[in-house]
Amino acid sequence: MELFKKILIANRGEIAVRIIRACRELGIKTVAVYSEADKESLHVKLADEAICIGPASPAQSYLNLTAILSAADITDAEAIHPGYGFLSENAQFAEACVNSGIVFIGPTPENIKIGGDKAKARQILKRKGIPVVPGSDGPVKDEESCMKIIKKIGLPIIFKASAGGGGRGMRIVNDEKDIEQAFFMAQREALAAFGNGELYIEKYFPKVRHIEVQILADKQGNIIHLGERDCTIQRRHQKLLEEAPSPVLNEKLRKKIGEYAVKAAKALKFRNIGTFEFIVDDELNPYFIEINTRVQVEHPVTEEITDIDIIKEQIKLAKGYPLSFKQPQIKFRGHAIECRINAEDPEKFIPSPGTVEFIHFPGGPGIRVDSYLYQGCKVSPYYDSLVAKIIAKGANRQEAIDRMKRALQETAIKGIQTNISLFLRVLENPDFIKGKFFTDFIQLMNNNNKS
Amino acid sequence: MELFKKILIANRGEIAVRIIRACRELGIKTVAVYSEADKESLHVKLADEAICIGPASPAQSYLNLTAILSAADITDAEAIHPGYGFLSENAQFAEACVNSGIVFIGPTPENIKIGGDKAKARQILKRKGIPVVPGSDGPVKDEESCMKIIKKIGLPIIFKASAGGGGRGMRIVNDEKDIEQAFFMAQREALAAFGNGELYIEKYFPKVRHIEVQILADKQGNIIHLGERDCTIQRRHQKLLEEAPSPVLNEKLRKKIGEYAVKAAKALKFRNIGTFEFIVDDELNPYFIEINTRVQVEHPVTEEITDIDIIKEQIKLAKGYPLSFKQPQIKFRGHAIECRINAEDPEKFIPSPGTVEFIHFPGGPGIRVDSYLYQGCKVSPYYDSLVAKIIAKGANRQEAIDRMKRALQETAIKGIQTNISLFLRVLENPDFIKGKFFTDFIQLMNNNNKS
Repeated sequence: MELFKKILIANRGEIAVRIIRACRELGIKTVAVYSEADKESLHVKLADEAICIGPASPAQSYLNLTAILSAADITDAEAIHPGYGFLSENAQFAEACVNSGIVFIGPTPENIKIGGDKAKARQILKRKGIPVVPGSDGPVKDEESCMKIIKKIGLPIIFKASAGGGGRGMRIVNDEKDIEQAFFMAQREALAAFGNGELYIEKYFPKVRHIEVQILADKQGNIIHLGERDCTIQRRHQKLLEEAPSPVLNEKLRKKIGEYAVKAAKALKFRNIGTFEFIVDDELNPYFIEINTRVQVEHPVTEEITDIDIIKEQIKLAKGYPLSFKQPQIKFRGHAIECRINAEDPEKFIPSPGTVEFIHFPGGPGIRVDSYLYQGCKVSPYYDSLVAKIIAKGANRQEAIDRMKRALQETAIKGIQTNISLFLRVLENPDFIKGKFFTDFIQLMNNNNKS
Repeated sequence: MELFKKILIANRGEIAVRIIRACRELGIKTVAVYSEADKESLHVKLADEAICIGPASPAQSYLNLTAILSAADITDAEAIHPGYGFLSENAQFAEACVNSGIVFIGPTPENIKIGGDKAKARQILKRKGIPVVPGSDGPVKDEESCMKIIKKIGLPIIFKASAGGGGRGMRIVNDEKDIEQAFFMAQREALAAFGNGELYIEKYFPKVRHIEVQILADKQGNIIHLGERDCTIQRRHQKLLEEAPSPVLNEKLRKKIGEYAVKAAKALKFRNIGTFEFIVDDELNPYFIEINTRVQVEHPVTEEITDIDIIKEQIKLAKGYPLSFKQPQIKFRGHAIECRINAEDPEKFIPSPGTVEFIHFPGGPGIRVDSYLYQGCKVSPYYDSLVAKIIAKGANRQEAIDRMKRALQETAIKGIQTNISLFLRVLENPDFIKGKFFTDFIQLMNNNNKS
């Protein structure tokens, strides 16, 4: 079976560059699409062809289904890679590709729909014997039904948006008197953010780790996992630093979570690549929380410890290639950490767009850089502030930490501000070094710094 | 045992940067030394301290023993890392360090002396049962003794300088009538280049591969190897592209060459790190040729497939740490290729110094860059033209080749010329891809291009 001759990349920034790299290594021609703001962007320079699809506003360019499908048609692209964000988890777009005779490089539209309906995914997987966080069996309609569930599972609880993500539409309730207000606030936020106010309830664990499992699935129905990533270091539900393997899982729990993820993927007839996310409480109990039906920002840490190129595998799977390895062939080696370098004020956490006047990235052993920056490029205010991912690999976790520190110290960027100083504080924190931290780590660290 | 607190790096360019990186990861402070031409060089910017040791001319700065030892004294450096080239294989310098109470990070002065006396090393190792290229048992004094040996081993032969390296003092003889002239020419060249006109004779194999084995040895006498590097792709005896593992060795021969290297190192009471070099003829017979008593330019390909940081190990060994692994614990994974990016005219092979106006290095999976370049830096005409090493790792050799190609295509350097286009031709050559090549590969490829 021959691979695709040409792929259109419906994205921008570092992930568009990452996909172009995979295509080049596979001998596949690439078509970049870009907004007017991205005319000089690195993905445009690296692709074999490039087509402007609209003005800077994402709604008119990178979210513009019609413009993107037309670009694929004009350039004879056989497949579209959506990257992450934008249209990557839009089932309607995946279906429109299929209807236009273009391969959508990602899970099936049905997989994407289930991924977007968190309450339903919970329900299905609970029935299959996967542990889920105690909570409502599907969406809750009113305060009364909330009260019933809360009586059963106890406080604190969290309201979550069925269609949600990125922390929006979420409200934690610690006290019974706050239930009504929290319900309406979360509903209003979810409706505004996702056009869908549907909420569900989960028991809220204040001390959890965020663990996700990378899944690869072929069209023949074979499903394997590439181990877990620990994404516990977050700020307001936005991941900042990820690592693989997780410093807290023991071999037994690692195996169990991997098996849960594969079982869940099989139950949903999952195809291509995706991630099954879990929380793990302070007594090491895992609970499924949600599915990501796309490649993730943090996929490199898994690539580093498995030597498997996830994007190249994803493209081959989309073409119909069977998986080239079975579960026992997946071998883990070393430890990898990724820092998400954002163009932002490191104190106020507000975006810092601008022109990059000087840039010097780190190099040497164990250091990988995924970025779209170059000297003279513009960081646009229109899009995500992620400008680079620095990935450090070591023979063990301490070596990965030591490498990341020296890599961040070597990095020099002028013209925009970045959050590099925040990571240096994380990497020197004794609790981080010991692997003793939960999702509230950044908040606690910042509070300690202020006091 | 505590590691060194501070190390002086008696070198410049990419290797000085590489050593600073290792020190930072180990928590060791660094002292850079620099010539007046290198005031703005990257190794000066990255080190904790920096001391000017003289004018641009290497003899007055990087080869200036007194100035370097004074710098170590002034800064309280406990150890000196010599890198490669310059004073790295100067036994007198190693001894002067010991006499000043400073640790020389490298093999013993005795090891260095044997490494510099190729004829003697041949003799010793032959007696220990290591196969050496047929030839003279030590230096040859005159034409008459040459004739005796040539009668025994047959033509063609090669004259080599006992103190030699880098192709100087070498002469191939195909015809009996040329012996006299070749002997005197080689002698004169050796005398001029190394201050020592001593020559020895080896049988000349026109079709060989250049294979070297990396050795690690602790002060307790434990010696292990980290497998081989294939350095067959050369131009006029200068290595251009190296890879690990070698594409031609079978498991049996790989094991045998590794054992030869360890046996040879034991025979010589070798300490710290070094390389034992072999040629392998077209019938896969290995012959020892020489020892390198320093870290080598191409050490990263071994690091990539073993996940062992050779420079960090070297520093620990110099301090007296025992080896942290035994031979069976060394596991190889994947395939790595290094391209030596030189600042030179790619057609005429003459140096191309200048100011780097723009630089964009490759990134993404499997790509490592070791370089001292940054936007605005100067590439000096006084020193080696090596400005960057690009290292590509893949799950197998073909993936490493694919990655290297796309990495070189991504690289953009303005202000100096480089040999990148030469590597792109190598990587697309069918003989290179099949692994069918000898040390004459570049010459044959260039001849074919011209015809």
